[in-house]
Amino acid sequence: MLSTTPRTRLGREKHRGSTDRNDLYEVLDTGLFCHLGVVADGHPMVVPTGYGRVGETLYLHGSTGARSLRAGEGTEVCVTVTHVDGIVLARSVFNHSVNYRSAIIYGRARMVTDEEERLEGLRALTEQLAPGQWDYARQPSRKELAATAVLALSLEEASVKIRRGAPNDEDEDYALPVWAGVLPLETSWGVPVPDPVLPEGMDVPVHISGRR
Amino acid sequence: MLSTTPRTRLGREKHRGSTDRNDLYEVLDTGLFCHLGVVADGHPMVVPTGYGRVGETLYLHGSTGARSLRAGEGTEVCVTVTHVDGIVLARSVFNHSVNYRSAIIYGRARMVTDEEERLEGLRALTEQLAPGQWDYARQPSRKELAATAVLALSLEEASVKIRRGAPNDEDEDYALPVWAGVLPLETSWGVPVPDPVLPEGMDVPVHISGRR
Repeated sequence: MLSTTPRTRLGREKHRGSTDRNDLYEVLDTGLFCHLGVVADGHPMVVPTGYGRVGETLYLHGSTGARSLRAGEGTEVCVTVTHVDGIVLARSVFNHSVNYRSAIIYGRARMVTDEEERLEGLRALTEQLAPGQWDYARQPSRKELAATAVLALSLEEASVKIRRGAPNDEDEDYALPVWAGVLPLETSWGVPVPDPVLPEGMDVPVHISGRR
Repeated sequence: MLSTTPRTRLGREKHRGSTDRNDLYEVLDTGLFCHLGVVADGHPMVVPTGYGRVGETLYLHGSTGARSLRAGEGTEVCVTVTHVDGIVLARSVFNHSVNYRSAIIYGRARMVTDEEERLEGLRALTEQLAPGQWDYARQPSRKELAATAVLALSLEEASVKIRRGAPNDEDEDYALPVWAGVLPLETSWGVPVPDPVLPEGMDVPVHISGRR
């Protein structure tokens, strides 16, 4: 069950809200990038970045010098993950919409200092972007770890919105001779492109070529 | 040429920055959704929303009751548009990356009150999401227009970051027996799904079925 706080209470389109934690996990676990919002020098700053989830914690990372992470340490952040599934073509311009699934998480980001948790967070981040790569590629050196900031954000304060299905038109518009429906947006993995300097004859591992 | 301000100066990975305004237009014009960041009650709030571009102005819209837009009126906002083009699989976990194109725009959002500009903004918003629909579907009524807030954001203060191509590995890692390259992420339009209550035999218009 997702909690409701003044920030996560849905002001608009309440019917699109979900209070099922499994929906939250599904939106997060199938995403690649989030948009991290921080307040920097009094103004909002939104940067795309990777993330990973372990249970009730979202992990973010970045260079120890990145401005967005410096602003985020110990301060309030907002992390949003959005999937666009299709364009909803209504009979009126006003009722055009988007089929989407989005999660918004609010909280105070915590800089992770425990080495074990840092590794667990980085593993989750890597596996979110590229499943199977943490064990396949070279793992971080001491120097690389020192250059990486890992932030943790609790999933305690989160909201999920989902829109699916056909357009909702005004009663009087259904008689219009206008086609209406959904144009699905589909994403898929393409054919892996080898690094040009890769030795010839090296097969693409199945965890990459077979990714779904 | 994109200007550089303290906010848009790239702190990290300067080589990924573009100062070509055409790159900014390309990132914006090929996107569907942006992430709008505002400061609400002192904390950051990031919401996915549609947008449209007319020259040097980005238009956003929403219900006149939406919290994110109320917070944005006359206050500083940040709008970010991100395309994920592929996952960069490096020989080390540390050098994993993402091929992406992103635009970040900072500025003070202006509530549009001029009726002509409001219509122009809404047209751009509709055409961004669903090209051809402004002229095809029923246009907004007076009542619908009154319920819609339109915000304008100048593109004056913007930055663009683009990453393309193969991984950048450490010199000593190129000898590792690890496959490296890019797994492209491809998006495409699916087969249009008619509204179940659409009269039978109504053809899908070419501007929808032929969308690229």
